[in-house]
Amino acid sequence: MSMSNAYEAFPGSRKVYLSGSHSDIRVPMRQIELSNGQTFRVYDTSGPYTDPSYEADVEQGLPHLRESWIRDRHNTEEQMPKPAPTKTTVRDNGVPSQSPQTLPGLHHRPLRAVRDHNVTQMHYARQGIVTPEMEYIALREGFQAEFIRDQVAGGRAVIPCNINHPELEPMIIGRHFHTKINANIGNSAVSSSIQEEVDKMRWATLWGADTVMDLSTGKNIHATRQWILRNSPVPVGTVPIYQALEKVNGKTEDLSWQVYRDTLVEQAEQGVDYFTIHAGVLLRYIPLTANRVTGIVSRGGSIMASWCLYHHQENFLYTHFEEICEIMKRYDVTFSLGDGLRPGSLADANDRAQFAELETLGELTEIAWEHDVQVMIEGPGHIPMHLIKENVEKEMEICHEAPFYTLGPLTTDIAPGYDHITSAIGAAMIGWYGTAMLCYVTPKEHLGLPNQDDVKQGVLAYKIAAHAADVAKGHPRAQEWDDTLSLARFEFRWRDQFNLSLDPPTAIAYHDETLPAEPAKTAHFCSMCGPKFCSMRISQDIRSWAQDHDIREDEAIVAGLKTKAREFKDQGGSIYPPIESP
Amino acid sequence: MSMSNAYEAFPGSRKVYLSGSHSDIRVPMRQIELSNGQTFRVYDTSGPYTDPSYEADVEQGLPHLRESWIRDRHNTEEQMPKPAPTKTTVRDNGVPSQSPQTLPGLHHRPLRAVRDHNVTQMHYARQGIVTPEMEYIALREGFQAEFIRDQVAGGRAVIPCNINHPELEPMIIGRHFHTKINANIGNSAVSSSIQEEVDKMRWATLWGADTVMDLSTGKNIHATRQWILRNSPVPVGTVPIYQALEKVNGKTEDLSWQVYRDTLVEQAEQGVDYFTIHAGVLLRYIPLTANRVTGIVSRGGSIMASWCLYHHQENFLYTHFEEICEIMKRYDVTFSLGDGLRPGSLADANDRAQFAELETLGELTEIAWEHDVQVMIEGPGHIPMHLIKENVEKEMEICHEAPFYTLGPLTTDIAPGYDHITSAIGAAMIGWYGTAMLCYVTPKEHLGLPNQDDVKQGVLAYKIAAHAADVAKGHPRAQEWDDTLSLARFEFRWRDQFNLSLDPPTAIAYHDETLPAEPAKTAHFCSMCGPKFCSMRISQDIRSWAQDHDIREDEAIVAGLKTKAREFKDQGGSIYPPIESP
Repeated sequence: MSMSNAYEAFPGSRKVYLSGSHSDIRVPMRQIELSNGQTFRVYDTSGPYTDPSYEADVEQGLPHLRESWIRDRHNTEEQMPKPAPTKTTVRDNGVPSQSPQTLPGLHHRPLRAVRDHNVTQMHYARQGIVTPEMEYIALREGFQAEFIRDQVAGGRAVIPCNINHPELEPMIIGRHFHTKINANIGNSAVSSSIQEEVDKMRWATLWGADTVMDLSTGKNIHATRQWILRNSPVPVGTVPIYQALEKVNGKTEDLSWQVYRDTLVEQAEQGVDYFTIHAGVLLRYIPLTANRVTGIVSRGGSIMASWCLYHHQENFLYTHFEEICEIMKRYDVTFSLGDGLRPGSLADANDRAQFAELETLGELTEIAWEHDVQVMIEGPGHIPMHLIKENVEKEMEICHEAPFYTLGPLTTDIAPGYDHITSAIGAAMIGWYGTAMLCYVTPKEHLGLPNQDDVKQGVLAYKIAAHAADVAKGHPRAQEWDDTLSLARFEFRWRDQFNLSLDPPTAIAYHDETLPAEPAKTAHFCSMCGPKFCSMRISQDIRSWAQDHDIREDEAIVAGLKTKAREFKDQGGSIYPPIESP
Repeated sequence: MSMSNAYEAFPGSRKVYLSGSHSDIRVPMRQIELSNGQTFRVYDTSGPYTDPSYEADVEQGLPHLRESWIRDRHNTEEQMPKPAPTKTTVRDNGVPSQSPQTLPGLHHRPLRAVRDHNVTQMHYARQGIVTPEMEYIALREGFQAEFIRDQVAGGRAVIPCNINHPELEPMIIGRHFHTKINANIGNSAVSSSIQEEVDKMRWATLWGADTVMDLSTGKNIHATRQWILRNSPVPVGTVPIYQALEKVNGKTEDLSWQVYRDTLVEQAEQGVDYFTIHAGVLLRYIPLTANRVTGIVSRGGSIMASWCLYHHQENFLYTHFEEICEIMKRYDVTFSLGDGLRPGSLADANDRAQFAELETLGELTEIAWEHDVQVMIEGPGHIPMHLIKENVEKEMEICHEAPFYTLGPLTTDIAPGYDHITSAIGAAMIGWYGTAMLCYVTPKEHLGLPNQDDVKQGVLAYKIAAHAADVAKGHPRAQEWDDTLSLARFEFRWRDQFNLSLDPPTAIAYHDETLPAEPAKTAHFCSMCGPKFCSMRISQDIRSWAQDHDIREDEAIVAGLKTKAREFKDQGGSIYPPIESP
């Protein structure tokens, strides 16, 4: 993995910034310089790391892009930082030397809203305020700022941006915008270190991840998250129940609202931008999973189901939901209402358990919105193609168009090792139908923890799905990219074709396997067909001949091509002009 | 690549045969033996190579499974074999020693129908005859033989099976059956040898290719095809114009009906099962491509367009179509009517040129059917998701439900190096909508000629797409496979999960990267979540507890779980029973 500055992985690209009304609104784009003198700009998630003027230092963290915007609102106060959580500290041994428990560069104190204040983007939007975050996003997405505000005010889009994550480059999740993708990272009890997870975050965002979720469940949960947050240019999500469970030594039955609440505050003070909260797993829904092929497959869902059953009490995330909202609005943490009862196999897709929980998520959405707290709704999972659309339709109706955020879905269960593909199919479709963010699946799904190459494979498959969805749903900027690359392809501008692709190094390596020489980069054919059988070459020859002879479409049909054909013939072997390379 | 006998790539699998009414109807299936004593059978394209009692000898070719069925019809006569075509012979130099020009095992003379006889499966079907081929397919697909006959008689399905390819295991292409996939192989002027192509054919069918197309354009076209045919258990398709063009030294303008006709006969005598014929590229359609971003991208389409333009004459494949039908019916070669004007980019999708050609293919379908010649219709290509369905609807209407056979389609153009994924998305969708066969795309598409790993990646992506389509369209046998694997997953039968997967070695390798020890194969968790956070484990614990206590769904809801909860509690830490492995 290359972690150097600038776009080493994207030859021909350079970082440019769009300017807004404030001098500190500078929206990064990756500009691809083409050999014909044109340029093409694409959405850029890679953060300051790809700016050659920026010197990265992971021990100091990223610059605080949003700090003045947050301070200038004069509605926050500094907290005394909480001591590092004891349970986690006790369990923290064997930390690799390059990953100390405490981040050296962490000097600022956590902020929270002063009492009775609400610092959510939704709250501002509903008051008619266009925040710098919204203006930034308007430039980034190519919409009017007022449209951004309207979407956030109505709950149809969210801007996950905790006031304690000032390093973040604002982004929006909603179905009218670019379809976003999330990459899950995080260690487990079985493998991986802090440094590896920070590297995975940078690697995932380099290739296009719009958010990352830190799903760590093993050692060093608090420290791992600190390192990721301070170095992440994209929103970070977590599932707080994981850390709460670590705090009670993994005994589900010992979980309590108090432990959970403290965990929420701890993570909100660190700067987590969205929380997955499985508040829809109600006691009465658990028996609905009894006849499933794969039961409950959400980790958070199974933890809460186990707790409910043990205590025969209603899910404390549900019963304390209003109190959770009070926490969320003091930091602007966005809800990602978890689908704890999502299907884990095609056999369980769209069943009663799944849709019963969705009804509760709709109810919770209304409560959160009463607090002006932002909400997304998590969705499945494993769904055959013909049942995908129903998921989006039901979510839109029951959850009042709150942005939908789905895991895949996988469209078949028979291909472990290839679930980035089984799920990219479902992800592209569900994105087209209106899902706002797609949680990636890597080739290791169901088999093990992804390594860096798996992360890249997952991100690439999901960039494809998200872009295919953007084209199909008619995002105003989407198909331009396809058309620009296709034209480069047709005109044999090989370097431009590579540089415009989602993964230039791979495209170049594949091409060079059979035709490595430099002249092949300008050749009017490739190793697939060879020079004689190159359809694009023949097609170009036909066209240039027709253009030279001023043949227009209708004229050609009506007048016939007889004389023209004679001229074409007279030019002899010019259908295949001399080949200038091997 | 492993080329040994038996299912080395599929641990736990063994070859079984279903028996028909004739003793020589033995339909191969791959039977997966599960650790719980059950078995699961899957469709098997790998041919005799995976039968441990069969000793493969590529120089002798496969046994002649269909020979007696063909002879017993008493409507064919032996031909004197044509001398090897001169042009090709002249160009055949540098043949690797293991790939002689002439196949040693080729002793039989080519057959053709005696004058005025028609030996197509469609002809028999329309006379009400259920052939052994149809009976074989009925067992293979799980339908009544009469349904097979009816589908073939109506033109809604084809059985590509040239009488000179007796080695072939009969299969059917039609939208009511398993969605099929095709793998393109074949050398180009730039790279690869005969032996490599034979290996690719075996490799592709091992992983699940239902047909292969030999798209060779370089040296040794005739010999390469001979070797592939004599060793192929699946139908082989070609694009005869490629060889015809080689015969005229690559000069498009020198192509003629005579050269083409001789090429058709030569290939029909060798045993090619279906021909891609670009008879719908009419002179008047060529100007419709003038304003396209990527012009004409079909090799055959561009060759014919160039010929038409040069001579200002109508496409000779169109003007001689009835004569082509006369050839097809004497060998039972199936038409694959080529989409020479298919779009090569999203920008050109569903345009006038594409649909104009489709109208002509509909007209040609009717002519072929008057001759009782089988027909499939080729389709695109590059199509954004929202325009895919229209392709199937138009094809069904215009071509009277003749089986549709599409290349992908790719749903975005921005990911060269990943076009097996961009196109698996479109392939799954178009398969669901009713396409009968999907032509694979490998990661090397647009960049170079696929090597063996690329072939495997392409086949796997398309097995996924085809199976996802089968599930979505409700094929009666499809979802059983998903459910069987999902249950194995839920019950932590790791070996069964691997053995039921499309690519067991990859699934095993991925799992073993983090948990290689043998005990991990029975562990009730994996490296993704570790033991404590395994949702399936927790879910199982909940369920087994509920079952032990005879809790039924309604009862649990109505009576409440209070006492049960106490018992659950009394069992203490049993939510996490002792872990028996690392």
